[in-house]
Amino acid sequence: MQKEIGFPYTMMPLTLFVVGQGGVADVASVCGCLNGAAHAIFLITGGMDKKLREASYAIIQDVFLWSEQTALPDYRPKKPKYEIIKSVSGSNLCHVSVSKWCKASKFKSFSKERSERCGWLTAAVAKYTVEALNKYADGAFKKAYPLSAAAQECRGCHDKGGMLENSRGVTDCGGCHFTPSMKQSHKKF
Amino acid sequence: MQKEIGFPYTMMPLTLFVVGQGGVADVASVCGCLNGAAHAIFLITGGMDKKLREASYAIIQDVFLWSEQTALPDYRPKKPKYEIIKSVSGSNLCHVSVSKWCKASKFKSFSKERSERCGWLTAAVAKYTVEALNKYADGAFKKAYPLSAAAQECRGCHDKGGMLENSRGVTDCGGCHFTPSMKQSHKKF
Repeated sequence: MQKEIGFPYTMMPLTLFVVGQGGVADVASVCGCLNGAAHAIFLITGGMDKKLREASYAIIQDVFLWSEQTALPDYRPKKPKYEIIKSVSGSNLCHVSVSKWCKASKFKSFSKERSERCGWLTAAVAKYTVEALNKYADGAFKKAYPLSAAAQECRGCHDKGGMLENSRGVTDCGGCHFTPSMKQSHKKF
Repeated sequence: MQKEIGFPYTMMPLTLFVVGQGGVADVASVCGCLNGAAHAIFLITGGMDKKLREASYAIIQDVFLWSEQTALPDYRPKKPKYEIIKSVSGSNLCHVSVSKWCKASKFKSFSKERSERCGWLTAAVAKYTVEALNKYADGAFKKAYPLSAAAQECRGCHDKGGMLENSRGVTDCGGCHFTPSMKQSHKKF
């Protein structure tokens, strides 16, 4: 955008979004490439204007749900340094995404291979984001990745208007709430 | 900063950070006021420069850990619309923070009171962030909120250089991993 359009995109210090690294400053919260994509989508679609916000959020949520439901990275450079296997994160969080990939690949969480994997993942998210934005620009954007049926059942009680209405969330629930290993793998605790 | 210093802060469209709302576009991932604070700290401390990044990340991590370990909001406006009770989130995530507060307050997750609570919380985070940045400017910043002893024990095996080195994270572990209700509250599943 900075190269092809210039102003106002030239006003933004793009390196600001480096802070998304490692799930916000290495905290392993929201995945940094999703956080960067969200800011880019919001800016480009004009989500700062309340009238455009719902459409902007729909694209962001689609990118987030695509990313947690898809075997990634689905981008591979022409001359890769390493071969990187795909995994499904089931989550928009760095912590979960990295742990799942480490388990699938047998590589360590601070290995060069993991770092390379996150580079490929960032390219994959950028590609999907641009495709979604292009569809939106053509008036042809539709959410392609709804919440899973299981998560929709959960949200039925826990979301706005539900019997309990006691949480917020647009993500899979089972990754944290119903996975035996989340509790049982450390019996000594 | 825009009012008192002007350039370069006047270059940033501050409304961009509205996208943090509801844990990034209502997804309930990382808390939006923490996400905004992280971007502000990174920009103000010059974290885009690799030499300054470690110091920048230390402040961000301190704000995140303070927020998850402290009963919040610890800000109350002079003429509040409602009385808002405090709760400890144990997490940097919107989903967890809101759910814990709903449980403590008995208010719903899309109620006006919850919205007001998130306003107070945003003010509380902004205040702590500015105090941390002022200490940093005076050369007196020190991390005040380390990881809990329990989480440090977890990280001993799972973090960089640990026996397993299979995850990343600077946050409490027990909120997701060792809470009986995370798995047992829905026996039908």
